[in-house]
This record gives sequence, structure tokens and C-alpha cells, in this order.
Amino acid sequence: MGDPRGIGPEVVAKALSRASLHEVCIPLVLGDVRIIFQTVEKMGLSLRVMEVPEEIQDVGPGMLPVLPLSHLSPGNGGDLSPEESSRASFAYVEKAAKMAKEGKVEAIVTAPVSKEAISGSGIPFRGHTEYLAEISGTKNFIMMLVGERLKVSLVTTHVPLWAVARLLRAEKILSVIEITCQGLQEYFAIREPRIAVAALNPHAGEGGLFGKEEEMIVRAVRRAGEQGLVVSGPWPADSLFHRAIGGEFDAVVCMYHDQGLIPLKLLHFNTAVNVTLGLPFIRTSVDHGVAYDIAGQGIADSRSMEEAIRLAVRMAGFKNKAQKPTRAT
Amino acid sequence: MGDPRGIGPEVVAKALSRASLHEVCIPLVLGDVRIIFQTVEKMGLSLRVMEVPEEIQDVGPGMLPVLPLSHLSPGNGGDLSPEESSRASFAYVEKAAKMAKEGKVEAIVTAPVSKEAISGSGIPFRGHTEYLAEISGTKNFIMMLVGERLKVSLVTTHVPLWAVARLLRAEKILSVIEITCQGLQEYFAIREPRIAVAALNPHAGEGGLFGKEEEMIVRAVRRAGEQGLVVSGPWPADSLFHRAIGGEFDAVVCMYHDQGLIPLKLLHFNTAVNVTLGLPFIRTSVDHGVAYDIAGQGIADSRSMEEAIRLAVRMAGFKNKAQKPTRAT
Repeated sequence: MGDPRGIGPEVVAKALSRASLHEVCIPLVLGDVRIIFQTVEKMGLSLRVMEVPEEIQDVGPGMLPVLPLSHLSPGNGGDLSPEESSRASFAYVEKAAKMAKEGKVEAIVTAPVSKEAISGSGIPFRGHTEYLAEISGTKNFIMMLVGERLKVSLVTTHVPLWAVARLLRAEKILSVIEITCQGLQEYFAIREPRIAVAALNPHAGEGGLFGKEEEMIVRAVRRAGEQGLVVSGPWPADSLFHRAIGGEFDAVVCMYHDQGLIPLKLLHFNTAVNVTLGLPFIRTSVDHGVAYDIAGQGIADSRSMEEAIRLAVRMAGFKNKAQKPTRAT
Repeated sequence: MGDPRGIGPEVVAKALSRASLHEVCIPLVLGDVRIIFQTVEKMGLSLRVMEVPEEIQDVGPGMLPVLPLSHLSPGNGGDLSPEESSRASFAYVEKAAKMAKEGKVEAIVTAPVSKEAISGSGIPFRGHTEYLAEISGTKNFIMMLVGERLKVSLVTTHVPLWAVARLLRAEKILSVIEITCQGLQEYFAIREPRIAVAALNPHAGEGGLFGKEEEMIVRAVRRAGEQGLVVSGPWPADSLFHRAIGGEFDAVVCMYHDQGLIPLKLLHFNTAVNVTLGLPFIRTSVDHGVAYDIAGQGIADSRSMEEAIRLAVRMAGFKNKAQKPTRAT
């Protein structure tokens, strides 16, 4: 459900009001019955909020099943306590991770939480992704953003631009290439993924004139190629995304956040999904934050949540298919 | 005409074979008659190559008027000498700048040259733009890339990514905002341009968590606002271009090359035009290089050259209109 004070409850309720989502999956909201109920009422959605047990039962369109993990109530001023809300939002993620590890759910879809608010409430927390990696003993994981026409994986994420060149390592780039490739095979049914790796510097450094980091990327690409992966680069980033959406590549490995997010959001504003690859379970996420400024107004766009749920379902489908033994004919 | 050994002669000839270009302007190619003639012959274009004097005469569709500034001929191996070609390509630019300064032409459109080859031939040369600025005594000039749906101005251009943060100054950002604004008024007839300034860091630095350079951008935006300019930012770069093409802004000021070029080339591959603003004359340019690897094969795409010519014509039209005194009614 995400942070009760953010737009999480709203986008969850709006998304689950779509009958088509119930046709492809059995949803279970880890959250707070009262908050979800209030949200549904306020927006006038025709959804029956149901308190359900951990053993998930089939529910149909028109229902919103909640596994209650908190019982929040507004204080005297009518507002939720930031501390209690943050601790509750952490409890939802904690339980989701536990259920995924135990195989009780096939995928986790996360709504936005506030890293700062959770840390501020006394719980050491560096973000959903880092928490899920830690709890599942995952060392190498990556953030991939998935849109209909473009998929991008990031080598570095939330760091200052000046630090990017300093943080790049051939090993790290190679690891992102490998995880991207495995992810496309396992969850997207692409047998031999074609991966492009973006250069860091303008014009791919123009032969070393504007930066030398491309040499590191060359080494990573060469080593990936030696493993039999279909990978190429470093390509000048400015013309690369045009080629990718033209069908030349299945995914682009990007060196920094905005290198991947600028083309992705230009093509897929509000419909891109954040996927964590490398974890032992499926995890997708909305591509937006808590948006406290518009929370409770009923104006939040739930398309990213809907896409995050649909993508998690598709990924689970491909994974199940890959695991089913095929009978010899 | 650009470097005789590159795709310049080819894209110039292809562009001028379009009758529609002759309807809106009087073209004059500064170059080499023999090279242009050979190019036209080789591609089977029905164009009459004419040697013309500096005093431009009206020429019509089907004609390709060349002011001869070199007389190159292939060596024994059949190839042009790199030194002679480079010196010739410099002579074309030199003459173009002189004619523009003297008001003999209304705009310069440059075909690609090789900075390295010109420097290598003994002429100190850091690029078309720098040369044109120097010869016209221009201190503050900027590179703006213009596509049908998006215009971007760059604060830094051909530098390693790690150096960008170090090169940013509030004064420089302010100057780019001012020149962008003046350029849009003078050459694009936008009376009150709405300018967005992109942040440098992901999520605009998230309040200083991922970098502090946004403070500098805030100062520049504030000072531009005090001058009465309609400018806002720093905006997170990932969602900004979606907003710009939605009509919210007339141009985006970008902190580094790929920040502006990634969205521009994604939207306008091969049709974007490079404009130098701040010079005392109009100068547009193709958005590609000499492409020695495909030169002479007849496969170069001339759309960027055609767009560069058309845009120069439109800019000259707006400038002339702005300068004509309007009669009081």
C-alpha cells in the first residue's frame, strides 16, 4: 500500500477498481483496512474493501482484499502521525518480502514510501530495493525501467552526476549486462537478448578527447561477449535510443539515472514500470514517489501502478512457463 | 560544402536538388566546382552545376551555383589529399564568415568539416562555431538544437561527463538563458519565450542528497526572472522533456550535451538542426559529422542539411520582419 500519507493507497485502490486486473491475477493489498476504506469512500469507487487472511483466496472484480498490518487513526488535527505511518509502511514491505521468500506470493508490487520518513522513524532503511536485496541475501541486483517500446538498466542510480564516472567499474558494468540478459530470458521470454551499452561521454568520448571511461565499457562488453552474450557498445548515447526503439536492441544498459530515464519518460510518461532484477522473486514498482503534495485529493494518476501490476503478472507467467518441463513429442 | 572528403558535397547536392528549396531562398555553395560536379554525376542528379561570382544571382530549380574557392584534384591513388582538402574546407568557412559579416548573405549553413584534419593541416581551428565566434568578435554564443517539437540549448558541450559539474557557473547558465530568450524572440518570433532549465542531478538533486549544483541553477533562474524573463527550474530532467513537448515550454536549457541530445535525437532523428545563437549573423548546421566511412557511396541522408537550410530561411524571414518598421495606422 506504500506510505499511508502518500498517494499509494489511492493508486492501489484506483488500479484494483479495474476488473481487467482481477482477470489476470489474485491481488492482495498489504496495508491498513481503515485507510484503504476511507480512500475508496472518498473517491466514490465501487469497491468492497475486505479484510482477508494471509492465505490468499480468489477474489473477483469489485473487491479489494486487504491483509491488515496496521490500524492507523488520525490524531486530533486529523492527520496521520508521520512516525506511525512510516513504521506501518515498513511493516507492509517486511511482510511482502517474507511472503515472497516463502513462495506465498508470486510477485511483489510496491507503492511509494518515503526513505527519509522511515529512517526518521528509527528504522534503518535505504529504500525498498536495498531492503529487499538485503533480506533475500542478494548481492547483485539492478534497476530496470520497462516501457512498451524501451527497456533500460542502470549501472548507477541516485548519485550526483559528478560522481558517476568515479563509480563506474568494468566489473559492475559486466554484472549489469549479465543480470539484464538473465532477466530478459527468464521474465520476458527473450531467448537471446540483444543488449546495447551506452557510452558515458558525449560522442562516446570521441576517441578519448572527451573522457576515457569508454575504455572500461569496452572491457566489460568484451568480457560479456566472451560469455556468449549478444552485447555491443559503448554507443554514443544521443542516437542510441532511436536505434533501440527501432528494434535493434532489446534493452539498453545506461551508465547513469537520467541517461536512461530521459528517453524512457519521454516515450512512456506515467506508464513506465520499475523492475528490480537479480532478486530471487519478482518485484515491480511504480515510477513515482509518495507525492505528499497531491495525496488525498483524488487526482493521482494510477497508470504506473496498473502497469506495475500487469507487468508483474506477465513476468510471473513467463517464469512459470520457463519452469514447466516440456513433454517430448 | 564542408570537407570534400566527407559527405558534405553529397548532402549539399541532394538538398539543392529539391525544387522547393529554391522557391524560398537563393542558395550559394562555397566550395569546389569539380568535386560538386563529380558528386552530382555519380549520384545521377539532374542538376546543372554552375560556376558563379560572389554577387549572387537568382538561380532556379535544377541549378547548383558554386562560388569556386578551391580546385582540388585526386592524386595518383585516386584520393584527395587530406591536407589540401582540409585547407579548402577552411577556406569555404572563412569566406562564408566574411560574406555574412559584410551582409552579402543572410545566413550561413555549414556542412561538416573535420576539426582534427584542419588543425592537422596547420591551421589553428577548434571548430566551425568557435571560429565564427572569434571572427565576429562574439564572446557569448550558444549551441541550440532545433527540432519541430523540441528546442534545447546547451550550457556545456563537448566535455567529459565528469567535468560538467566543475564547469557550471551561475553566470554561464544565466548567459545561456538570456541568449536562448533573445534568439527565440529575434529568430523564431516568440514574443515572450517560456524557458525551462534542467537540473544537473537525478531528481534535481533531491534537496541536496545527490549533488548541490542545483543551487547554482536556482541563482541563475532567479536572476533571469529579475530581468523579466519567463524562466523556471531547475526541473528534474527525466520528466522535463515530456512537459516541453506538451507545450509547456518553448525551449529547455540543458546542462550537458547528452541531456539535450538524447531527447532531441529520439524525437527528431536526422531532422534536427544545430543553430549557433549569439553571433551577429544566422548560422545553422547539420547535426552529423563528416562520416568518412560512407562518403562517396551515395547513401548519406540529406534531411538534416535540408532542414538546416529551411530553418536558416525561416530565421532570416522572422529577423527581416522584426526589423521592418511597422507603419502606424
